[in-house]
Amino acid sequence: MAGAGVVPEPTRIMVGVNESTIKGYPHASISSKGAFEWTLKKIVRSNFSGFKLLFLHVQVSDEDGFDDMDSVYASPDDFKKMNRRDMIRGVHLLEYFVNRCHELGVSCEAWLKKGDPKEVICHEVNRVQPDFLVVGSRGLGPFQKVFVGTVSEFCAKHADCPVITIKRKADEAPQDPVDD
Amino acid sequence: MAGAGVVPEPTRIMVGVNESTIKGYPHASISSKGAFEWTLKKIVRSNFSGFKLLFLHVQVSDEDGFDDMDSVYASPDDFKKMNRRDMIRGVHLLEYFVNRCHELGVSCEAWLKKGDPKEVICHEVNRVQPDFLVVGSRGLGPFQKVFVGTVSEFCAKHADCPVITIKRKADEAPQDPVDD
Repeated sequence: MAGAGVVPEPTRIMVGVNESTIKGYPHASISSKGAFEWTLKKIVRSNFSGFKLLFLHVQVSDEDGFDDMDSVYASPDDFKKMNRRDMIRGVHLLEYFVNRCHELGVSCEAWLKKGDPKEVICHEVNRVQPDFLVVGSRGLGPFQKVFVGTVSEFCAKHADCPVITIKRKADEAPQDPVDD
Repeated sequence: MAGAGVVPEPTRIMVGVNESTIKGYPHASISSKGAFEWTLKKIVRSNFSGFKLLFLHVQVSDEDGFDDMDSVYASPDDFKKMNRRDMIRGVHLLEYFVNRCHELGVSCEAWLKKGDPKEVICHEVNRVQPDFLVVGSRGLGPFQKVFVGTVSEFCAKHADCPVITIKRKADEAPQDPVDD
């Protein structure tokens, strides 16, 4: 496609987004929103047609142990319902970002995946081949990092494209910095 | 200044640049040029007034041992000359980037510092407070990294602003990947 017209292809920016640990679905995390708004303000600016945003939300899959704790109390039907509900919630989360892009006239795509977020993001980078990846970060210290996943650090190291990590602003951090 | 007019301040991108290990001064390294061209193509695009590029070139200072080897043969006057010559060469290196910006109509600044590149870049980030930092990388493997400085990794970890590392393209790598 490149070279066919005068206008170059838009720069394709993948943005990894997740749900708020405080407010839950459909609310996006503080760091996801921050990374997205930073991208609009500092990269896209007023060049709305020059960029395409690719929003990826990865939901932790049932096999990752989280839901196993509830399995004593839940029938298989409950699980199906939960998965469907989660999926709908995931779509609602993505809607926030998609709507914001539509308002501005920035073209975008959004999709949902299940799995280990850091692994899936790197896998999707390989598949979709964005020009670069934007991920938010809570900006945790080394002690806090021991106990929580650091998706951004993993992606910065392993994703097969340039990665820009946007740290959450200090004045937006909740009382417990692990929250987001 | 922000808010005084309708037009927002341009996004200020600091770009760390260095000389080619193969061709020497005033030629820029392959990875510096790559990072710069990537920034123009993928970020600045046609929005020339929306960005300001800040080029920083750090020359390893005499105390870092490199020039000590020559001191047996060199008088203090030789050193002064060498330093002046290096400085002029550094300016010529920066000219490449500045000229390219002038051609396009992208505003820019460029300056020269002496010291340990990774330390100086992080220090200058603190002082100048760019919106983000772009650094090139040779994309060396873990074994090769043991023997050479990895300015990009240090900056990605320690610079007090978002950092985007642009790996050199595989087809641009010289026979010895440590060369640049």
